[in-house]
Amino acid sequence: MAIVLGDNRYGKAEVRVVRVDRSGDTHTLRDLNVSVALSGEFAAVHLTGDNAAVLTTDAQKNTVFAFAREHGVASPEEFGLRLARHFVGSQPAVRRARVTVEEYAWDRVPVTGHSFVRRGGEIRTVRVTHDGSATHVVAGLRGLTVLNSTGSEFRGYVKDAYTTLPETLDRVLATEVHAEWRHLSPTASPEAPWDASFTEVRRLLLETFAGTYSRSLQQTLYAMGRRVLEECPGLGEIRLSMPNRHHFLADLEPFGLDNPGAVFYAADRPYGLIEGTVLRDDAPPAEEAW
Amino acid sequence: MAIVLGDNRYGKAEVRVVRVDRSGDTHTLRDLNVSVALSGEFAAVHLTGDNAAVLTTDAQKNTVFAFAREHGVASPEEFGLRLARHFVGSQPAVRRARVTVEEYAWDRVPVTGHSFVRRGGEIRTVRVTHDGSATHVVAGLRGLTVLNSTGSEFRGYVKDAYTTLPETLDRVLATEVHAEWRHLSPTASPEAPWDASFTEVRRLLLETFAGTYSRSLQQTLYAMGRRVLEECPGLGEIRLSMPNRHHFLADLEPFGLDNPGAVFYAADRPYGLIEGTVLRDDAPPAEEAW
Amino acid sequence: MAIVLGDNRYGKAEVRVVRVDRSGDTHTLRDLNVSVALSGEFAAVHLTGDNAAVLTTDAQKNTVFAFAREHGVASPEEFGLRLARHFVGSQPAVRRARVTVEEYAWDRVPVTGHSFVRRGGEIRTVRVTHDGSATHVVAGLRGLTVLNSTGSEFRGYVKDAYTTLPETLDRVLATEVHAEWRHLSPTASPEAPWDASFTEVRRLLLETFAGTYSRSLQQTLYAMGRRVLEECPGLGEIRLSMPNRHHFLADLEPFGLDNPGAVFYAADRPYGLIEGTVLRDDAPPAEEAW
Amino acid sequence: MAIVLGDNRYGKAEVRVVRVDRSGDTHTLRDLNVSVALSGEFAAVHLTGDNAAVLTTDAQKNTVFAFAREHGVASPEEFGLRLARHFVGSQPAVRRARVTVEEYAWDRVPVTGHSFVRRGGEIRTVRVTHDGSATHVVAGLRGLTVLNSTGSEFRGYVKDAYTTLPETLDRVLATEVHAEWRHLSPTASPEAPWDASFTEVRRLLLETFAGTYSRSLQQTLYAMGRRVLEECPGLGEIRLSMPNRHHFLADLEPFGLDNPGAVFYAADRPYGLIEGTVLRDDAPPAEEAW
Repeated sequence: MAIVLGDNRYGKAEVRVVRVDRSGDTHTLRDLNVSVALSGEFAAVHLTGDNAAVLTTDAQKNTVFAFAREHGVASPEEFGLRLARHFVGSQPAVRRARVTVEEYAWDRVPVTGHSFVRRGGEIRTVRVTHDGSATHVVAGLRGLTVLNSTGSEFRGYVKDAYTTLPETLDRVLATEVHAEWRHLSPTASPEAPWDASFTEVRRLLLETFAGTYSRSLQQTLYAMGRRVLEECPGLGEIRLSMPNRHHFLADLEPFGLDNPGAVFYAADRPYGLIEGTVLRDDAPPAEEAW
Repeated sequence: MAIVLGDNRYGKAEVRVVRVDRSGDTHTLRDLNVSVALSGEFAAVHLTGDNAAVLTTDAQKNTVFAFAREHGVASPEEFGLRLARHFVGSQPAVRRARVTVEEYAWDRVPVTGHSFVRRGGEIRTVRVTHDGSATHVVAGLRGLTVLNSTGSEFRGYVKDAYTTLPETLDRVLATEVHAEWRHLSPTASPEAPWDASFTEVRRLLLETFAGTYSRSLQQTLYAMGRRVLEECPGLGEIRLSMPNRHHFLADLEPFGLDNPGAVFYAADRPYGLIEGTVLRDDAPPAEEAW
Repeated sequence: MAIVLGDNRYGKAEVRVVRVDRSGDTHTLRDLNVSVALSGEFAAVHLTGDNAAVLTTDAQKNTVFAFAREHGVASPEEFGLRLARHFVGSQPAVRRARVTVEEYAWDRVPVTGHSFVRRGGEIRTVRVTHDGSATHVVAGLRGLTVLNSTGSEFRGYVKDAYTTLPETLDRVLATEVHAEWRHLSPTASPEAPWDASFTEVRRLLLETFAGTYSRSLQQTLYAMGRRVLEECPGLGEIRLSMPNRHHFLADLEPFGLDNPGAVFYAADRPYGLIEGTVLRDDAPPAEEAW
Repeated sequence: MAIVLGDNRYGKAEVRVVRVDRSGDTHTLRDLNVSVALSGEFAAVHLTGDNAAVLTTDAQKNTVFAFAREHGVASPEEFGLRLARHFVGSQPAVRRARVTVEEYAWDRVPVTGHSFVRRGGEIRTVRVTHDGSATHVVAGLRGLTVLNSTGSEFRGYVKDAYTTLPETLDRVLATEVHAEWRHLSPTASPEAPWDASFTEVRRLLLETFAGTYSRSLQQTLYAMGRRVLEECPGLGEIRLSMPNRHHFLADLEPFGLDNPGAVFYAADRPYGLIEGTVLRDDAPPAEEAW
């Protein structure tokens, strides 16, 4: 028996870079939070503190800023791909690079060509993984908070000794969608229409949540994932994590009032948490992409 | 010399109430976070633990839910007014009630009449203060994050022994607007068009931020406040708190790159913080409204 | 009628400075978050964008770092006093300076003389206000979370139409203490034993919370404030804000179990919020200190 | 090709349960945040909304409270084990249960036997996974923030075109330790001394961080993990995630001041992030435990 070093990675996290493009009549803006994680031949730095193979996280940060200037930011996916390939291609010790990007959306204020207002809580996400041969792109979003004020029931479940919940034919269904989807063969098209792809998936998620009569949040989750894969042949898999943000009917009986789906208490904790994956059964597995 | 009880208040904070109106073809939604603070003849509970004058915070919470059912929520201002008057009017010990409301905005998902998506980080706020005779309404917003990618300079400032900042003729100006404005004579019109008033002030703030060539964030702040008061004769005062969310030009010279306003590092801390009030000089002061 | 500029201030917020003193056998550490707010003759910068009177917030930040080197940090109060006096004393336009300091506590790890572990969520606070003649020091803390698992009742309160809460003779009482206390005549002793004073007030707050049989959280709050003023003659006033962090008895009856004060659900929202001031009736008022 | 359901799980998250034991002369307290995630034969609920196999998350919550009453909470590990076995043992559709527990520490206030003060930001964690045959216990902590004010260097690293960082022989090393360690064969001893085990691992982490002269944070991380496995034969693997909380020397040269390791700026973002695993090479792998 011996004690050994297992999986490891390191890098600079949360580099907040804003790229302004002043080339057109109006400015455009990309507002990103970029994190890099590198792995490979890094036993020495762990075992003896020998840094000879280590690209500093400070240099990784500098690379993010320099690449934003040299190459621009066509999309978070394209930017992540360029960075991941650079680190693997230029550093002999680096066998795999993971670049994750969060993007914050801004809307234009039409008064000028250079004024913007931040859109809000929702965040677009990208994870690019590159190991020299294979490249994976997982796109996603989080903080998409949605609510149906009817069209949701919940009944027919197990009644064990600890079950007290009454069945209901009409409830509020609310959740904060966290979704990530894996693109098949992203190497084929580095200049792919990433922004259009993101917009399409987001629209499908939103419309399917709204349009599905729900017998359970699991059913809604699966419907959302299935719809995305049906409409987007370039995607192999989608993972969804959806907290059930409970809205309880306020009990107004003590005050002589009925409450026919009118007044709800929005609870913080605890919450249900529903997680699921929908995939094509012929998509090659790629756990390292996540 | 004696040790005595000074100012005090108590109440239920952060009652999360969601009101669904199903009366029309489509549902409408108001999503509120309501806090109550009562003050008055409450020496006994502090000095001896005698609760005879205390309306429990639990009852305050129940009142919020019951009023949402009985009276609906026409606007957060109207809802706050109704609650504040109720507590002062029904509880002999209560001399003043303060009701604060946060409202979270939802947009409609057009697929159904009952589907909504949360708009984001921005929050609408209301403070209603009522003491039996005077009533004050302070409306506001926070989390309105805006950015001009040009049209801002900063120069001509003091150079003391600790000043190293170079002057600039072109910088990114970004801030997260926190604004509150006081309505004059709100008692005159309990069913005033509160939603329209809010929308108008928000528009003026946004447009003035965007449209002002800025020599300092103070100048922009004052211009925003002044514009609101010029356009809204029913408002007596506006208070603005605007952090200067610094966007520093990334230094790319070591890498042989120029950076003509293209790549910025968005800093977290420290930040400048600019706070100011703009008011009508004939507006009666009302410190208790804040 | 005219629209005019009202109260205003500006400064650098949240300068995170860590001061290491290596002069002794072991290192000592002060970990601070410093914010500066200046006010005075600043109409021009608001009205016309003329920055001639403006000391940049960048220079304020530099001053914080330079003073930490030149003068060290004997205590957050001493450091705040020095900074506040500097800004008023050196800048003609500055009529008042407010310096607020948060301090984060670290404990020593006894293995070496230079190793530390952060103590946790509690934060020590200081507000220094100086206007050239008067100086105020308000010390405080926040995030001191305390709980009594018995020794608390709640009954004898108003029963209105919305009251459903049952009375109780034994409940959990939990709160997160936010307290600030004003020192009288701080100018008299700039090198006062500020650390010892803080430690003493914290001990009194903690012991009085624990040792008071509570009929209401208001009673406990007042007892805590009164005790501090009784023991500390140099303090004129103390302000306390204490959320009632409700711990509800879990209802286990449906499962055939009793629950004699054994299992509680710790709720997030809503919460009661109790705020109160205790003061000496001969202490000169000083609203500008807060 | 078909679109199919992949991995999925569901459960109640963040049940905040506080258990008071009044059996001794003084009360004892366990303050937990419990989350349950179940997986197994749940295709129907996703595909058709058939809830016949679904134990509601509400019942899961009730079970947490009832078990805290019936069986007490000897330790978070013991509590998690009991719950995980219950869900798998009593629900035919459940093939695997994951119970995660966070514990918040409280110190005694010696004034009474029932008074407590929350210790702070650090959190103890447990993940129990049970699938009917195998059981895994992963214990851990997060939020353990530590700092060495000397005894750390960083040099000898790669210098690529984007490297500008100067080498240093003396820097502040600070991190927030997030560690999780896997117990071997937890089924053998359900009443194992879990609290003592946690205390020992925490002590080893803290002492090794403090006592290691550091040439890189990776080296420190590995030393910490290795030490834990050397001293604790019952552990098979430890995973560490340690952000490098940069403390930059303030540049005081423009003000004519030196800065020999005295004044630092504590940066928020970006930060280095170092992640690594240390394991026994003969420990059976157990990816499902994490």
